[in-house]
Amino acid sequence: MTISNKLNNIIKKRNSLLCVGIDPDIEKLPTHLARNTQGIYEFCSAIIQSVHEQVIAFKFNSAFFESQGAEGILVLQRLLEQTKVAYPEIIRIVDAKRGDIGTSSKEYAKFVFEFLNGDAVTVSPYMGQDSIQPFLDYVDRGVIILCRTSNPGGIDLQNLQVEGKPLYLRVAQYVVQHWNTNNNCWLVVGATVPEELAQVRKLAPLLPILVPGVGAQGGDLEKSIDNGLTREGTGLVITISRQIIYASSGQDYAEAAKAQAEKFNQQLKEIQGRLR
Amino acid sequence: MTISNKLNNIIKKRNSLLCVGIDPDIEKLPTHLARNTQGIYEFCSAIIQSVHEQVIAFKFNSAFFESQGAEGILVLQRLLEQTKVAYPEIIRIVDAKRGDIGTSSKEYAKFVFEFLNGDAVTVSPYMGQDSIQPFLDYVDRGVIILCRTSNPGGIDLQNLQVEGKPLYLRVAQYVVQHWNTNNNCWLVVGATVPEELAQVRKLAPLLPILVPGVGAQGGDLEKSIDNGLTREGTGLVITISRQIIYASSGQDYAEAAKAQAEKFNQQLKEIQGRLR
Repeated sequence: MTISNKLNNIIKKRNSLLCVGIDPDIEKLPTHLARNTQGIYEFCSAIIQSVHEQVIAFKFNSAFFESQGAEGILVLQRLLEQTKVAYPEIIRIVDAKRGDIGTSSKEYAKFVFEFLNGDAVTVSPYMGQDSIQPFLDYVDRGVIILCRTSNPGGIDLQNLQVEGKPLYLRVAQYVVQHWNTNNNCWLVVGATVPEELAQVRKLAPLLPILVPGVGAQGGDLEKSIDNGLTREGTGLVITISRQIIYASSGQDYAEAAKAQAEKFNQQLKEIQGRLR
Repeated sequence: MTISNKLNNIIKKRNSLLCVGIDPDIEKLPTHLARNTQGIYEFCSAIIQSVHEQVIAFKFNSAFFESQGAEGILVLQRLLEQTKVAYPEIIRIVDAKRGDIGTSSKEYAKFVFEFLNGDAVTVSPYMGQDSIQPFLDYVDRGVIILCRTSNPGGIDLQNLQVEGKPLYLRVAQYVVQHWNTNNNCWLVVGATVPEELAQVRKLAPLLPILVPGVGAQGGDLEKSIDNGLTREGTGLVITISRQIIYASSGQDYAEAAKAQAEKFNQQLKEIQGRLR
C-alpha cells in the first residue's frame, strides 16, 4: 500500500483532515514543565496521546528537536517510535525541509527514513530532481515537496513568473510529470492564498497536499478545503500546530489541545456539510 | 570582524582558496577503520589534522553525520569544537542546506550556530527572506545561500528564465540588494558552468562565493578562479571533498589526503601565475 493510499484510508475512516504539528518551542512549554529535553518529551507525549483520536497525521518539526542538539534528536526518534507502536494508522511526517546533491540526500534520507523511521518527509525542490530522488527511492514513504509555502517570503521565489506561470506551478508540474513515478509524492501548498491551492489541485488532481497556514498564520479554512480536496474528498492534510498544542500553558494543556482538535474537526464537519 | 573579512584574511595569509569537504561516507572509510561513529570520528580527525595547513576552511557535510543519528551529531559537534580550538583561523562551515518559516529557521540557526557552534551555514532560498533572516541575525556568522548548484538537477529550477534572466541570478540579486544587510551573506555557485560564475561575480562583486564541483564533479578549476575571484583576488572558496579525503583507503589515508591538498594548492599557484 502506498503512503498516499494509507493517507486516504485514514481520512475516510476518521472523517478528518487534521494533522497536528509537533513544534515543541522550549519557551512556550506549559509553565510547570522543565525547560529541557525531558520537558519537551513529556509535553509532546502527552499531546500525542491526548489528540490521537482526532488526527490523521502528526507533523514533527525537526527544527525544534535539532535546536536541543543530539538529545533533542533522540527525543524525536523516541516520539516517532512510540507513535508508530501506539497508533500505527496515523501518518508520522518528519518536517525537515532537506535537499542536497544526490550523495548527500541519500544520507538525509537515511536519517529521516531509517534512523527516525518516519513515514514521510518534507523536502525543498531548489536543487532539482537528483536532490529528491534518494527520498523517492523509499517507495513506501512519502516525499512532501515544498511548492507554495505559507510564510511571507513564500512569494520571493515561488511567485516569480516563469513563462507566464508562477514558479510554484512549475514545481507542481515537475512533480506530476517527472518526480512522482513511485506514486509517493505530496505537495506543500499554504492556506494563505486559497486560489493558489485551486491552481495546484487542477494541475495535480490526485496528489495529497499538505496545507499549513490555517491556524496561527490566518489562512481561510473553508476555501482551502473547497479548493484542495480531490474529487474523492480526500488527498488533503490540514496541519495546525500552535493553535492546538499551546491552547493552554497550565496543567490542563493536553486536555485543552484535545478540545481544540475536537473543535477543529467539528468545524470541518460543518464546512463539509455546507460544501456538499 | 565579519566572517567575510576573516575569510579574506586567511585567503591572503595562506595564499590558498582550498576548503576541504568533510563528507564521511561510512562505506568509503579506509578499510582498517570501524564502520561506525568511532571510525568516522577517527577518520575525520586525522584528515583535519593532516590537511589543516593547506586549507582556509572545512565544510562539514551534516548529512553524513545525521545518517548516523544522534551519535553522528555528537561526532560532528566534537569535530567542530576540536577544529576551533586547534585551528582558530580556519573557517568551519556547516553544510546543512536548511530553510523553513521564520520560527523554525530560528531553531535551525540555534542548531548550527549554538549547539554545533559553526562559523557559517549553507541555506536554501526557496522559502524567501523570512526563512533566511534568523540565520542572518547571527551577525558574526556566515550565511551561504544556494544560488547555482553543481548537481545535474541544479538546472531544473535554477536555470528557469524569470524576466529574461535565470532564477539563480535573481537569487544573487535578492542577496545583494536585500539579504546582505549584515554583510554576512555568501553564495554557492558550482564550477560546472564557469560562465555562470562570471555572471554571479558581476552582480555580486564583493560577496564570497563557495564553489563546489571542481573535484569529483569535473568543473574547470582555472576558469572558475578567473571568473570567481574578486578584484582583490579573494572572496572565493573552492571546496573539494572526495578527491582529497578518499585519496587512499589504506593506513596512509591522512598523508594521501595531505599530498592531494598540497597538489591542489600547487595547481592553484600555477593558475594564479598564469592569470596574473
